[in-house]
Amino acid sequence: GYAKVDLSRKARNGYPEVIYGAGKTAEQIIEIMHTLKKQGENVLCTRVSPEKYHEIALDEPNVKYFSEAQCVQLIQHEIQLTSDYIAVVTAGTSDMSVAEEAVATAQMYGNQVKRIYDVGVAGIHRLFEHLDEIRKAKVVIVVAGMEGALVSVVGGLINAPLIAVPTSIGYGTNFGGVTALMTMLNSCASGITVVNIDNGFGAGYSASLMNHLGTKENLD
Amino acid sequence: GYAKVDLSRKARNGYPEVIYGAGKTAEQIIEIMHTLKKQGENVLCTRVSPEKYHEIALDEPNVKYFSEAQCVQLIQHEIQLTSDYIAVVTAGTSDMSVAEEAVATAQMYGNQVKRIYDVGVAGIHRLFEHLDEIRKAKVVIVVAGMEGALVSVVGGLINAPLIAVPTSIGYGTNFGGVTALMTMLNSCASGITVVNIDNGFGAGYSASLMNHLGTKENLD
Amino acid sequence: GYAKVDLSRKARNGYPEVIYGAGKTAEQIIEIMHTLKKQGENVLCTRVSPEKYHEIALDEPNVKYFSEAQCVQLIQHEIQLTSDYIAVVTAGTSDMSVAEEAVATAQMYGNQVKRIYDVGVAGIHRLFEHLDEIRKAKVVIVVAGMEGALVSVVGGLINAPLIAVPTSIGYGTNFGGVTALMTMLNSCASGITVVNIDNGFGAGYSASLMNHLGTKENLD
Amino acid sequence: GYAKVDLSRKARNGYPEVIYGAGKTAEQIIEIMHTLKKQGENVLCTRVSPEKYHEIALDEPNVKYFSEAQCVQLIQHEIQLTSDYIAVVTAGTSDMSVAEEAVATAQMYGNQVKRIYDVGVAGIHRLFEHLDEIRKAKVVIVVAGMEGALVSVVGGLINAPLIAVPTSIGYGTNFGGVTALMTMLNSCASGITVVNIDNGFGAGYSASLMNHLGTKENLD
Amino acid sequence: GYAKVDLSRKARNGYPEVIYGAGKTAEQIIEIMHTLKKQGENVLCTRVSPEKYHEIALDEPNVKYFSEAQCVQLIQHEIQLTSDYIAVVTAGTSDMSVAEEAVATAQMYGNQVKRIYDVGVAGIHRLFEHLDEIRKAKVVIVVAGMEGALVSVVGGLINAPLIAVPTSIGYGTNFGGVTALMTMLNSCASGITVVNIDNGFGAGYSASLMNHLGTKENLD
Amino acid sequence: GYAKVDLSRKARNGYPEVIYGAGKTAEQIIEIMHTLKKQGENVLCTRVSPEKYHEIALDEPNVKYFSEAQCVQLIQHEIQLTSDYIAVVTAGTSDMSVAEEAVATAQMYGNQVKRIYDVGVAGIHRLFEHLDEIRKAKVVIVVAGMEGALVSVVGGLINAPLIAVPTSIGYGTNFGGVTALMTMLNSCASGITVVNIDNGFGAGYSASLMNHLGTKENLD
Amino acid sequence: GYAKVDLSRKARNGYPEVIYGAGKTAEQIIEIMHTLKKQGENVLCTRVSPEKYHEIALDEPNVKYFSEAQCVQLIQHEIQLTSDYIAVVTAGTSDMSVAEEAVATAQMYGNQVKRIYDVGVAGIHRLFEHLDEIRKAKVVIVVAGMEGALVSVVGGLINAPLIAVPTSIGYGTNFGGVTALMTMLNSCASGITVVNIDNGFGAGYSASLMNHLGTKENLD
Amino acid sequence: GYAKVDLSRKARNGYPEVIYGAGKTAEQIIEIMHTLKKQGENVLCTRVSPEKYHEIALDEPNVKYFSEAQCVQLIQHEIQLTSDYIAVVTAGTSDMSVAEEAVATAQMYGNQVKRIYDVGVAGIHRLFEHLDEIRKAKVVIVVAGMEGALVSVVGGLINAPLIAVPTSIGYGTNFGGVTALMTMLNSCASGITVVNIDNGFGAGYSASLMNHLGTKENLD
Ligand SMILES: Nc1ncnc2c1ncn2[C@@H]1O[C@H](COP(=O)(O)O)[C@@H](O)[C@H]1O
Ligand SMILES: Nc1ncnc2c1ncn2[C@@H]1O[C@H](COP(=O)(O)O)[C@@H](O)[C@H]1O
Ligand SMILES: Nc1ncnc2c1ncn2[C@@H]1O[C@H](COP(=O)(O)O)[C@@H](O)[C@H]1O
Ligand SMILES: Nc1ncnc2c1ncn2[C@@H]1O[C@H](COP(=O)(O)O)[C@@H](O)[C@H]1O
Ligand SMILES: [Mg+2]
Ligand SMILES: [Mg+2]
Ligand SMILES: [Mg+2]
Ligand SMILES: [Mg+2]
Ligand SMILES: [Mg+2]
Ligand SMILES: [Mg+2]
Ligand SMILES: [Mg+2]
Ligand SMILES: [Mg+2]
Repeated sequence: GYAKVDLSRKARNGYPEVIYGAGKTAEQIIEIMHTLKKQGENVLCTRVSPEKYHEIALDEPNVKYFSEAQCVQLIQHEIQLTSDYIAVVTAGTSDMSVAEEAVATAQMYGNQVKRIYDVGVAGIHRLFEHLDEIRKAKVVIVVAGMEGALVSVVGGLINAPLIAVPTSIGYGTNFGGVTALMTMLNSCASGITVVNIDNGFGAGYSASLMNHLGTKENLD
Repeated sequence: GYAKVDLSRKARNGYPEVIYGAGKTAEQIIEIMHTLKKQGENVLCTRVSPEKYHEIALDEPNVKYFSEAQCVQLIQHEIQLTSDYIAVVTAGTSDMSVAEEAVATAQMYGNQVKRIYDVGVAGIHRLFEHLDEIRKAKVVIVVAGMEGALVSVVGGLINAPLIAVPTSIGYGTNFGGVTALMTMLNSCASGITVVNIDNGFGAGYSASLMNHLGTKENLD
Repeated sequence: GYAKVDLSRKARNGYPEVIYGAGKTAEQIIEIMHTLKKQGENVLCTRVSPEKYHEIALDEPNVKYFSEAQCVQLIQHEIQLTSDYIAVVTAGTSDMSVAEEAVATAQMYGNQVKRIYDVGVAGIHRLFEHLDEIRKAKVVIVVAGMEGALVSVVGGLINAPLIAVPTSIGYGTNFGGVTALMTMLNSCASGITVVNIDNGFGAGYSASLMNHLGTKENLD
Repeated sequence: GYAKVDLSRKARNGYPEVIYGAGKTAEQIIEIMHTLKKQGENVLCTRVSPEKYHEIALDEPNVKYFSEAQCVQLIQHEIQLTSDYIAVVTAGTSDMSVAEEAVATAQMYGNQVKRIYDVGVAGIHRLFEHLDEIRKAKVVIVVAGMEGALVSVVGGLINAPLIAVPTSIGYGTNFGGVTALMTMLNSCASGITVVNIDNGFGAGYSASLMNHLGTKENLD
Repeated sequence: GYAKVDLSRKARNGYPEVIYGAGKTAEQIIEIMHTLKKQGENVLCTRVSPEKYHEIALDEPNVKYFSEAQCVQLIQHEIQLTSDYIAVVTAGTSDMSVAEEAVATAQMYGNQVKRIYDVGVAGIHRLFEHLDEIRKAKVVIVVAGMEGALVSVVGGLINAPLIAVPTSIGYGTNFGGVTALMTMLNSCASGITVVNIDNGFGAGYSASLMNHLGTKENLD
Repeated sequence: GYAKVDLSRKARNGYPEVIYGAGKTAEQIIEIMHTLKKQGENVLCTRVSPEKYHEIALDEPNVKYFSEAQCVQLIQHEIQLTSDYIAVVTAGTSDMSVAEEAVATAQMYGNQVKRIYDVGVAGIHRLFEHLDEIRKAKVVIVVAGMEGALVSVVGGLINAPLIAVPTSIGYGTNFGGVTALMTMLNSCASGITVVNIDNGFGAGYSASLMNHLGTKENLD
Repeated sequence: GYAKVDLSRKARNGYPEVIYGAGKTAEQIIEIMHTLKKQGENVLCTRVSPEKYHEIALDEPNVKYFSEAQCVQLIQHEIQLTSDYIAVVTAGTSDMSVAEEAVATAQMYGNQVKRIYDVGVAGIHRLFEHLDEIRKAKVVIVVAGMEGALVSVVGGLINAPLIAVPTSIGYGTNFGGVTALMTMLNSCASGITVVNIDNGFGAGYSASLMNHLGTKENLD
Repeated sequence: GYAKVDLSRKARNGYPEVIYGAGKTAEQIIEIMHTLKKQGENVLCTRVSPEKYHEIALDEPNVKYFSEAQCVQLIQHEIQLTSDYIAVVTAGTSDMSVAEEAVATAQMYGNQVKRIYDVGVAGIHRLFEHLDEIRKAKVVIVVAGMEGALVSVVGGLINAPLIAVPTSIGYGTNFGGVTALMTMLNSCASGITVVNIDNGFGAGYSASLMNHLGTKENLD
């Protein structure tokens, strides 16, 4: 095919190319997976529907599927977990699939992860019950749809970097996640940076970079 | 002039016409004020700059000016205060002028008001210190700009009707208040209704209607 | 599951958590319903398709389905109706399903409700024929799509709080309800507050809070 | 200059070129005015500030200025008024300058005009008091800002063509007139067509075309 | 049902209520049709899919279906055609279904109509070949999608009122017709008024009002 | 200063770096101009107000100012004009300053230019009078604001590449040029490419690249 | 049918009318194809689904289908290829179908084309490996979705005209291609012009006009 | 005043409250500064115009002003610099003031900072000349306006966390920075998180949190 797999990405960026499965056929995914496999890499593929996964598994039975996260992993060498952890916090239960994409990504890169789900501000005591666990994380990811207010509340209570992920959950003027995104970009709390709507992958990836800071040498 | 002052408004709506001063000259305001004064009403005029106020005061020395609220009041008969109160809560100090427009309006219609200002979620303990006072209000107005997250937090903690007022405070993707508005319309907390950006008047007016419910006969 | 049902919501907000059925499977809904049922609450679940309802009814045969409103109710203790009523007014027949969500919500919380449907301003005499009934309501909900002008007309004729609900009914530049929403936020009439597009639930909930004002003690 | 005045416009369109004064210097306006004057036309120039008018009047003392409408007219041959009239209706007093641009344009083309100003739906009885006069018009122009609901109400009560003019009056989510425009395009009443925000000229021009229908031969 | 058919509309507006079929079931349409039929009116129903039409035809075999226009007509008394005609002009062949909705509406109200289709500005000679026919019309409707430039070209060449109808034809930044709408609202030609995207009905209705001007008495 | 002037740009792109004057002080402009002058280049600086020009001229008296275009040129070696020419066409007189920026840029790079101004479609005969001159151009630039329809008309009549430049001229829903831009991107005519709103420089630059095609060797 | 095929387009524009297949039935396409075939033209039809192609092939077995490009060609006289070539560059593999539409169009008009696919800036070395081939092209087309940054990078490295094509590839705030479009319109590199989202045809067409400049006489 | 300074912020978030000077008078800033000074904190105030600074300096002569960054610092105890550094990269010289706000913030919190300014992709070799210095940073901030493509290029070449700051630099469809923001959110490179338009403070703050990771104990 015309695909030019980026074989020097690990050297440049620390992690090998991740396959974005959304617009690709199973055949295209398998082809890229083979190229990366031959390099000896662990391979991550995001946005894979169950149907595509089943096609891929026929060719490559060692892949593991995370159905909530819609991710496929091919593990060729063991992953070492960090002692510091990333806390992944969600506002509602409907934000879980985006959160799980972040979790699958972060774990792929050797991060210990703790999930704190469904603690949105409509019942804020649920957040306070888990505040200690959140405050002890080295990096915090907050995933929220609708109005996304949870980000500001968490941001005001911690001193770790917070990565905010807006989700498309909601209706009417949620505008497919734009409202949650705008909330997060305009947060009155500090220490917050933001990724694209529903971009659990991006959050997990950046969180991994941050969680490894100070614990290993720069790669170059 | 061509203005047709709405002289039956009090009969229909319970309160006489309020003069929206923004696009009017001092002369036009004075003319409408005279018409309403002749009917024996207390007159409220919003969005009046200090310059316009000084012109009006030359003609009508009995008017009182609320500079933070940019409102003019002409009181012809004494106002009776309610025993229940409206709590007016702001996220930041910059939201104060919008909040004061709400206060001036609500007081004009005989409502007791309590101000709880600068308790935004970046320092959420400030809110909790005043939660009792907020929870005891019959109606709560929350005024916030930037991402407006305070509305959801307060909404999750009270059982009174909450009127949310987005302000145009902020920069970049606050879009002149649209972001705060969208946050409020998509709140995960219940019992919240919303007015236009910077519309302190509308919030004070509606809050007054609610604060008087059950305490007097319907007007018609 | 990961769901953290908010068991203190009734204590804080006066009403127990309502299940938002839109993004949830029948199993998830049943699980949350059981948790709330064990607390002895009446349970309301909104945005439930007929298919999901049938699955739920297999597990919990006592639930009642409101097909126009797409709501499920599980009633464990009798509901006391208010003597004051909420008027629910719609512009067209297509706005009925949103209006019925408001009705189902309000009735769940013990409010007497009167429906005045299909009285949009294209044939404004239909509104005037029901004006008395609307003016006698303690709270008025107006549900309208397209250009939403009915809200301003009703708002100019009553002295009760008016909750405006924009619907997504229309085409082209109705922008899925945004036009009706903007109309309502910019109304030249006073006493109007607004909820999200198609948010019948939110309108019914807030109307219930207002309709109970002055008739019972504050809950805290 | 580089300007190419359109000297055949009257032959093609029935009316000679109108000078849009907004982006032009007084000199440029005078130059175009001279060209049209030499052809023997009556000349209309819109969007002329008082300062520009004074410069123009030095050169051409016969011009007449309509300050509310910000229009300049140079009349070289007498205007015959129609027996049918155009009704120009506004919601508020702040919409008057746009309405007056429509009036100045319509009168320039020989139309009898009746003004019915400040009859917005917040006090709808004001409209009903003038309904007969509106219903007898051959064409109706409705000028409104904020939420523009007056258009739908008038549209539902007449059988003449209605030209709706949104104005930029309002604040916050009025979005400089876009909200009123959208209201008008989505009106549930029939027989309504719309022009650009603040485009009084366009409304007066189209209304004149309609008001002359059936009363004179087609021009070509 | 809850529908309140507007039985005085013909008296007020000159034409009886038109049924907007888009959000209604066949049963609802039939019910309203019966009510209007009993009054002796000719009935028009727009936005009817072939499936719905077949259901309606079972109940009311006299209805006639216009498949390109997606309109149903029930004719109870003969229609008199005007001697003046409305020209309906389209830019492309894809704009035809919207144009046909305008035609079906205008014919329903007794207007002679001439179709001039597929004369967009990409091949502008096609327009000039039909210019005489367009210039002789009493009213002109121009239907165009994509960039909608045809409206300005036709508007610059005629002296009749021009009703512009933007269509949702196109892709990418056509934004479902918003681009064509904006083009039309900002046209540099005069005498143009605009209706909602894809609103062939509204254009046909307003064109009928205009085409009858001067030929019959005002209806009230 | 921190500025890193791009000294290899001519080698890479064929033309040296152009100074964008909008956000820079006169001192900053002079500093960059000196660096480029030392390399022996002709220097072009766009978006220079008369005030800034006067400051620059004190330091560098050889610069030439084009006031309509708001451009400064410093010519160190003679410019050779092409025999083929670029036609620069505008819809109105108000589009002239953007057109002149394109002209100043194109001339700087040795292009013969012909101006055809004020030939918008409201008086389309003005365009046809100059069609021959436009059709003989090797490249055509069309500059238009408001609805920008001229682009489609010209595009349908020529076989040269057409560069469309939307301008911010207009009001209301012209949205500062966005409407004209969208018109141009959605043109039903072919052979049209588009630059940013008011970007006369970009149009002149690209037109120069095209006008030189086939007449000289590729630069690398 | 009502279609008016533009038979003089080749005389005016250099190329015959291209059939835009998106909103047309196979029958309509065949009819127009026959008309053009009778004129002896090579015929191009874009946006043809495989299903429509199969219907067309039944009637006209000589047509050739390009499935990635979704284009149909009917070749009646041999195509002469240029010696200069157009480079078609894509950021990702998902942008390929838009790129292939450009390729099919350009080849139809006799242009030699070179494809350089999947060289997006996430792995920028892939671009540098092909830079020579890109720099030798007479015209460069860059096709990119997501954030479209590749356009600026290529634009900064070449001296040929660059036509940028935004694609709808991406999710969330890519807004169906609007983000890539805006990136391209605001590029800090010069020599870039832009076409509509996913408009491979338009890019191929304009590129062909440019690639033939200087190599043949003007057509008129 | 009504201000409630957040005195426990350092305990919660690691850094004391920062004063956002934009909507505050010099008096208000001085008052808050005094409160924080009494606690013994170093005080940072952003968005301070030179005029306000001069007023503040009269009261508090020890403050230091950073005019490019528009920041005021009051230093009460010495700042310890990190050995790791933050690289602050800008696309153009016009992005400098936003970048300097990030620098002033980061230095306030003890971070070593390296500036790499004016290395935008129009002359990409300027970036490569500084790539080593960028790759050795522990955290990278990239500040860019217009189309913001520099973010993706840098993101593809490093393995440190990258914080992207869109600026409002540009014109037309840059939409006050929204285009650059969208580019950054949709970047095809990984490891990028984003802050609000022109939010140099937020970038410096988050970068400081990241730069200190692994080098000191968690603060709680
Ligand atoms: N879920 C995701 N969201 C955003 N970016 C992703 C995702 N998964 C993979 N990517 C990135 O997308 C790039 C692949 O683009 P492509 O060449 O189209 O496959 C990879 O370099 C990844 O860094
Ligand atoms: N600050 C305000 N915001 C919104 N509406 C207002 C405000 N002040 C007054 N009004 C309303 O605006 C109406 C006055 O409109 P007008 O006829 O233009 O003076 C009154 O009926 C008030 O109900
Ligand atoms: N139709 C509805 N629209 C908006 N909010 C709702 C609706 N139904 C329930 N809710 C609210 O949504 C919350 C449920 O969120 P979740 O945890 O995702 O189930 C509840 O607390 C309700 O207050
Ligand atoms: N107030 C106005 N609003 C919109 N169009 C106008 C107005 N006044 C004049 N025009 C039209 O604008 C055109 C002048 O455009 P130009 O001279 O090219 O800038 C004339 O042909 C008029 O038909
Ligand atoms: Mg929940
Ligand atoms: Mg504060
Ligand atoms: Mg109805
Ligand atoms: Mg008024
Ligand atoms: Mg055609
Ligand atoms: Mg002109
Ligand atoms: Mg790839
Ligand atoms: Mg520079």
